[in-house]
Amino acid sequence: MFEARLASTLTLKRIVDALREILNQSTLDCSDTGIQMQAMDNSHVSLVSLCLRKEYFEKYKCNRNISLGLDLKSLTKVLKCANGDDAVTIKAADKADKVELSFESAGKERTADYELRLLNLDQEHLAIPETEYNCVVHMPATEFARICRDMATFSESVVIACSKEGIKFSASGEMGAANIKLSETTKGEVSIQVDEPVALSFAGRYLSTFTRATPLAEKVKIGLAPDVPLLVEYPIEDYGYIRYYLAPKVDDPDG
Amino acid sequence: MFEARLASTLTLKRIVDALREILNQSTLDCSDTGIQMQAMDNSHVSLVSLCLRKEYFEKYKCNRNISLGLDLKSLTKVLKCANGDDAVTIKAADKADKVELSFESAGKERTADYELRLLNLDQEHLAIPETEYNCVVHMPATEFARICRDMATFSESVVIACSKEGIKFSASGEMGAANIKLSETTKGEVSIQVDEPVALSFAGRYLSTFTRATPLAEKVKIGLAPDVPLLVEYPIEDYGYIRYYLAPKVDDPDG
Amino acid sequence: MFEARLASTLTLKRIVDALREILNQSTLDCSDTGIQMQAMDNSHVSLVSLCLRKEYFEKYKCNRNISLGLDLKSLTKVLKCANGDDAVTIKAADKADKVELSFESAGKERTADYELRLLNLDQEHLAIPETEYNCVVHMPATEFARICRDMATFSESVVIACSKEGIKFSASGEMGAANIKLSETTKGEVSIQVDEPVALSFAGRYLSTFTRATPLAEKVKIGLAPDVPLLVEYPIEDYGYIRYYLAPKVDDPDG
Repeated sequence: MFEARLASTLTLKRIVDALREILNQSTLDCSDTGIQMQAMDNSHVSLVSLCLRKEYFEKYKCNRNISLGLDLKSLTKVLKCANGDDAVTIKAADKADKVELSFESAGKERTADYELRLLNLDQEHLAIPETEYNCVVHMPATEFARICRDMATFSESVVIACSKEGIKFSASGEMGAANIKLSETTKGEVSIQVDEPVALSFAGRYLSTFTRATPLAEKVKIGLAPDVPLLVEYPIEDYGYIRYYLAPKVDDPDG
Repeated sequence: MFEARLASTLTLKRIVDALREILNQSTLDCSDTGIQMQAMDNSHVSLVSLCLRKEYFEKYKCNRNISLGLDLKSLTKVLKCANGDDAVTIKAADKADKVELSFESAGKERTADYELRLLNLDQEHLAIPETEYNCVVHMPATEFARICRDMATFSESVVIACSKEGIKFSASGEMGAANIKLSETTKGEVSIQVDEPVALSFAGRYLSTFTRATPLAEKVKIGLAPDVPLLVEYPIEDYGYIRYYLAPKVDDPDG
Repeated sequence: MFEARLASTLTLKRIVDALREILNQSTLDCSDTGIQMQAMDNSHVSLVSLCLRKEYFEKYKCNRNISLGLDLKSLTKVLKCANGDDAVTIKAADKADKVELSFESAGKERTADYELRLLNLDQEHLAIPETEYNCVVHMPATEFARICRDMATFSESVVIACSKEGIKFSASGEMGAANIKLSETTKGEVSIQVDEPVALSFAGRYLSTFTRATPLAEKVKIGLAPDVPLLVEYPIEDYGYIRYYLAPKVDDPDG
């Protein structure tokens, strides 16, 4: 028997928004430590990983491990029926074929219960090796989203180059070329740690889908190392994260 | 000769918004007591009835009964040309083939006059029998609109069940099931009078079109009785109303 | 070598918005006095003219005359990448095949550079004779935009009639007729100078495209004279303007 309660639905809405463009369906692995999810995106190029520790929840009970196969489109529709400040309780019996979501308004005069059918999804457990990144950048999540959007105007490929001087995003195509440079700020909005300068090329449209997670966090963490997938991490308060991984393009890593 | 003046165009805009999805054309029956309109919706399933007493108007003159056949799409276009706080005067001569709408801005430096052609519409006068409803519920109009929208996510049919415990809306389909319960609140936002519990099934998409009237009123009144059309009533200040009627579905009135 | 710097990108965005519906491409003629542009609209009916004096710029350098052929769609895309309050510097070398736009955020921690390819456009220099207008009207730009939009609901043709009593816009079609009258206001929002009353008919859709310039100016100036193109002028602060010219329709100048 699984039961988890959140005092507010807002973050749950944002988590599902961050996943639903990249995944149609998803299996949440619930255990007594919390909820985990890992999956390749629909086109099997990038990888997304979700972690929500049980401390994140107002109430959390999970007697035995359970996997909840969810259709993210349906889940989105149910979450649209809730106010952001409704409390939400998620319940599933052992071996159940459905999950129940109950929303309560602040004054409790209104309760809304929804049942969603569970899906039987093939699970591939993916090992994500811990990586030492040569460059680690923290920057405002909205700034990263804006840069990804602006780069997409110019080219399908984005070169991210990082050195002690700062982080530079470049794109070049038919219309012209774009270069955006950020340097470390004294106010601490942008922080840059560099062991070794790196310049790598990535497919811009995956970067853009990652930025659907922007409302989740003030800051995004970017990790870069040669020949290793880019890490884009959005913390979920202090209790978890969504991490996206994207392998660099092999051809034009000029920058 | 007919002439009626409103100090503000806003409510008129909202009335037409409430009607125009359900009706393409409409005949307003103007008499010395006010304006009445009754019609079946375009698909001849539900019924809508409008009443505006002459006290609703700043000025009202109607020497002899006159019927104004209006194309609601055209009327909407004309109303879009007006600011909500413009004063509006509606005029028609006896046996006229057009109606005149004049809008005046507050300072009167701007006047805008529009003429609309009148239509010759067949009139069917529908007798709506007075009904005693077993259950009468008053609830916030925005809450009713939200519930109708949320139910539509799950099924074409909505079961409305009312008892002393409260009013419950249910829908169930491919994706899953939804139940929303409201109980009477001490703050008086939801009030429920029940002589006899009732559970009836309705076509959700008609309920949704009724909620186009939401901006007209704080509260909506819902009347339920077995084998009798549902009443959904939006008062127009103290001077009239829009009422919608919808027969229950005969098949699945389980709830 | 050409270099011009603006403290804010906002007005530049608005200028390009004002031009891009009427022109696909445009040649800016830069000289030591400022920037000029003249062109027929895409369908060769109306004419648009832009003037930005060098005093408009924070910094302005132009050693020798240079013509910059720009694709306005691409320029719009680049400007979308900038914040309204970024400073912008536009640079082109003599005989260059590209122009460079550099945006700097207030704190200068972020710089974004864009290169746009220049186009080789045929230039037709159009002589616009100075005209004495019988009627000159100044009115709020938003009011003019609203009237053009409202008139379009009724007809493709708009009659503008101006006399000492005021300015009247009329349109009449299938659906009905519209008349909007403005009189001179004591507050000075509408001012009307009339030597001789004029009534002329114009194609409404050109008037509507002119109103894309509305965000540029509080007031629009309208100049009318018989058998002469209508003038619609939006000042750009005190340092320039966008002017649109549209010949009257020859057929129905009744009004």
